[in-house]
Amino acid sequence: MTGVESRVAALEARSADLEARLRALEDEREIVRLILSYAPLVDSGRAPEVAALWDEDGVYDVDEILMRSPAEIEAMVGSANHRRWIEGGCAHFAGPPHVTVDGDDATAVGYTLMIVNSPDGFVLRRATANRWTLRRTPSGWRAVTRTNRVLDGRTESPALLSAAFPD
Amino acid sequence: MTGVESRVAALEARSADLEARLRALEDEREIVRLILSYAPLVDSGRAPEVAALWDEDGVYDVDEILMRSPAEIEAMVGSANHRRWIEGGCAHFAGPPHVTVDGDDATAVGYTLMIVNSPDGFVLRRATANRWTLRRTPSGWRAVTRTNRVLDGRTESPALLSAAFPD
Amino acid sequence: MTGVESRVAALEARSADLEARLRALEDEREIVRLILSYAPLVDSGRAPEVAALWDEDGVYDVDEILMRSPAEIEAMVGSANHRRWIEGGCAHFAGPPHVTVDGDDATAVGYTLMIVNSPDGFVLRRATANRWTLRRTPSGWRAVTRTNRVLDGRTESPALLSAAFPD
Repeated sequence: MTGVESRVAALEARSADLEARLRALEDEREIVRLILSYAPLVDSGRAPEVAALWDEDGVYDVDEILMRSPAEIEAMVGSANHRRWIEGGCAHFAGPPHVTVDGDDATAVGYTLMIVNSPDGFVLRRATANRWTLRRTPSGWRAVTRTNRVLDGRTESPALLSAAFPD
Repeated sequence: MTGVESRVAALEARSADLEARLRALEDEREIVRLILSYAPLVDSGRAPEVAALWDEDGVYDVDEILMRSPAEIEAMVGSANHRRWIEGGCAHFAGPPHVTVDGDDATAVGYTLMIVNSPDGFVLRRATANRWTLRRTPSGWRAVTRTNRVLDGRTESPALLSAAFPD
Repeated sequence: MTGVESRVAALEARSADLEARLRALEDEREIVRLILSYAPLVDSGRAPEVAALWDEDGVYDVDEILMRSPAEIEAMVGSANHRRWIEGGCAHFAGPPHVTVDGDDATAVGYTLMIVNSPDGFVLRRATANRWTLRRTPSGWRAVTRTNRVLDGRTESPALLSAAFPD
């Protein structure tokens, strides 16, 4: 192999390494963006767009309600109940998620606050632990499950946060 | 074309692709950082530095006050009124923004909380929807407009959040 | 130098540039992830894992308590006092940090909210300014110092936020 040929081979290896590392950052960026789109979509009543964050078999498991499909998620966001939250003034405030990508699967944990407007001002209605599982699909990353548990002392909530960190 | 020449041509195409994708991540990172610098600057009274986040023709449109230039933004941060917030204890707590870059323009939506210290402890004074438009300038990204609307049920606030997501 | 050789030399320079820029993004991503792992670890009582975010000589300086080593940090998280917060329901809600990397050192500023569950609902117990200093170690980025000051009007808190932005 000539000098130029070996330099070209080295460049090919460097490019492959750069491509893999860049793709890891792009994956994480896309997942964070999906998670961060939930709150503005839900607080503006965009029911089909909220549902489309999940894959076809997606599940959204909140303390008091289990939604077993995108259609059930869409129905929740489109309900009269949810519309009343928006009309009264409401923020599903999300903190930055902690994401772990593993090939075509990913998990993320984070916190959300539900803040509602009231005659006496804004009220912090609840603080919630969140865990997402996601998968890469032909049309990009989608949520597979999202599990929310209120941080009110029930043991499931810290367990949800802890699951992001292997022993 | 020899074998080496065609491999070099392929590497040139891969480098161009990597450069474009990396620049997209760098743009978004710079925009997020600009947005995240607002709160620590405003909560420490750094009036000129807050104003410098906007471009020369920048506008900051808050419910009760419209600031039509960086000079007006600087005057707000430097005002006795604003100094009283800092002296009493205040956090302009920002959530992570959802950013969309399109060439030399960008938009971002997000939420902020204004939290103030009081004799009875910390009070959540308001939760606000935020929308930024930004542009690339010779000295980096700058805000062109920032629009804030309190999430108290007024229809402008959900509309601001929804605008980030095309139909 | 032949045409191919000069093209190979140009590609080598482009690869080196891409590697440096990518590493800058990876550094920042790793630092953000370290900071964002604090809350879920501390709210689930993972004392050794919290302590391991700091380097051997790490310091955690909170208003009312100065922890001078990872062992002291671990003791705080493992204490009966801290366990009571978790059992009652507690969120150490963190906003997205503003990070500045300088070679093998870095700083970050941000905000945290301590939210606790009470018989009357969730209470915003405090809003706090945070400043981290970090260093690159053979096993990745680690915290060297974290300083927290409550945003209750004491002048140290705005000063902590302001320190991220040179004059």
